[in-house]
Amino acid sequence: MKVIKIGGNIIDDEQKLEEFVSSFSKIEGDKILVHGGGKIASNMAKKLGVAVKMVDGRRITDDDMLEVVTMVYAGLVNKKIVSMLQSHGVNALGLSGADANVLLAEKRVNSAVDFGNVGDVKKVASGDIMKFVNMGLTPVFSAITHDGNAQLLNTNADTIASEIAKSLVEFEEVELIYIFELLGVMADISDENSVFENINLTKYLELKSDGVIVDGMIPKLDNSFAALEDGVKSVRIASISYINDANAKHTCLSLA
Amino acid sequence: MKVIKIGGNIIDDEQKLEEFVSSFSKIEGDKILVHGGGKIASNMAKKLGVAVKMVDGRRITDDDMLEVVTMVYAGLVNKKIVSMLQSHGVNALGLSGADANVLLAEKRVNSAVDFGNVGDVKKVASGDIMKFVNMGLTPVFSAITHDGNAQLLNTNADTIASEIAKSLVEFEEVELIYIFELLGVMADISDENSVFENINLTKYLELKSDGVIVDGMIPKLDNSFAALEDGVKSVRIASISYINDANAKHTCLSLA
Repeated sequence: MKVIKIGGNIIDDEQKLEEFVSSFSKIEGDKILVHGGGKIASNMAKKLGVAVKMVDGRRITDDDMLEVVTMVYAGLVNKKIVSMLQSHGVNALGLSGADANVLLAEKRVNSAVDFGNVGDVKKVASGDIMKFVNMGLTPVFSAITHDGNAQLLNTNADTIASEIAKSLVEFEEVELIYIFELLGVMADISDENSVFENINLTKYLELKSDGVIVDGMIPKLDNSFAALEDGVKSVRIASISYINDANAKHTCLSLA
Repeated sequence: MKVIKIGGNIIDDEQKLEEFVSSFSKIEGDKILVHGGGKIASNMAKKLGVAVKMVDGRRITDDDMLEVVTMVYAGLVNKKIVSMLQSHGVNALGLSGADANVLLAEKRVNSAVDFGNVGDVKKVASGDIMKFVNMGLTPVFSAITHDGNAQLLNTNADTIASEIAKSLVEFEEVELIYIFELLGVMADISDENSVFENINLTKYLELKSDGVIVDGMIPKLDNSFAALEDGVKSVRIASISYINDANAKHTCLSLA
């Protein structure tokens, strides 16, 4: 089972998205896709006069912004990807966390920042996800969850991917792959030769304390190591090229 | 199996929607919900500067409008209803036609009016819909379909409901119920006593030629009689009250 998460830069770029969908469709075996919404949600919010507020790269989701991300992530982007996958012969099933109650979350409280309608995943309905997979379907998750009390919540797509990966370990061997615009974790993003091909936990802590790994890469790698600790077989940070070419330069994370 | 379609006026009214969801959640046995988008799509289009064009009560769906209806129907409205149903203990699964390829459609061409990205249902994946139902899930369909070539299409929700109902006849006894803001088909919408409790095909043709049944009610009833001809056990046009009260005044359609 491969759980693949795609970053916003791929969703924002029609050509990259088509390239990704084509590559993804060629993966054999069980697979699951997780996506966020890229810049489309912010652009849509601006058009609708909804203020875009970010803190540490995370979106503040008030009621108006929740409407926007629900429309964009679970509607526009999810159905676009699902229909593209269908045209490539992948029987995709788009899901928000409310659908079939697949991702039950809890509104984040007691945080230093009030992120609004933002949730942390509490329970993954892994049994039902496997039933979909065993029907020959490829689940495609948008980054929207719910709390079981009719409240939809905005949830980080990286975290959704790692929570799903962890929950499926009891059924089969799971690989988690974060696909984004770079080749992997790099010391210098302008130098293609600076990709760290392997990072173990000790090395990660070192790179973090040295300030080599910063910003959005930190929660992504925190999620990744948490997934490895919970039995996910491998976690990779890679570009689209890696999907159909295992030899493509990328970063492989490991505990030891 | 009850296939229930709700009209836009229920979706537009928070209180009516809550009343409907509460009633729907109490229905025993297999059930499927189909919804359109009410006025929300038109309002959203206006806010986004997308021109709203209607011909004979049907929406002209150019590329910009398709984005709006995809967001609103398959995202905002669908996920809102799904999360509300979950809070009432119904394990709802929101679906567009692209999801699991449940509703394959064909873009409408050779029409007197160019409706744009509008599709007519060609194939219902009734087997997979029944698999979802047999998993204990309640499918909730938005009025978005696809053509299998990555083109999403806007499709009339009444037609989707009747196509789904017809396709499920081979599995079980199917009842089709259109819930809207009135009590049923009425001779005079301001007179509660003017509800036609029974309309057969002969009577329908008579009422149509006499100009008693007009406008949007005509395609709804055309769909209904087509469903009856294809083996759907009963078709009813009713208000929310009918859902939990079989004695509530409503219109029952029959062939003979």
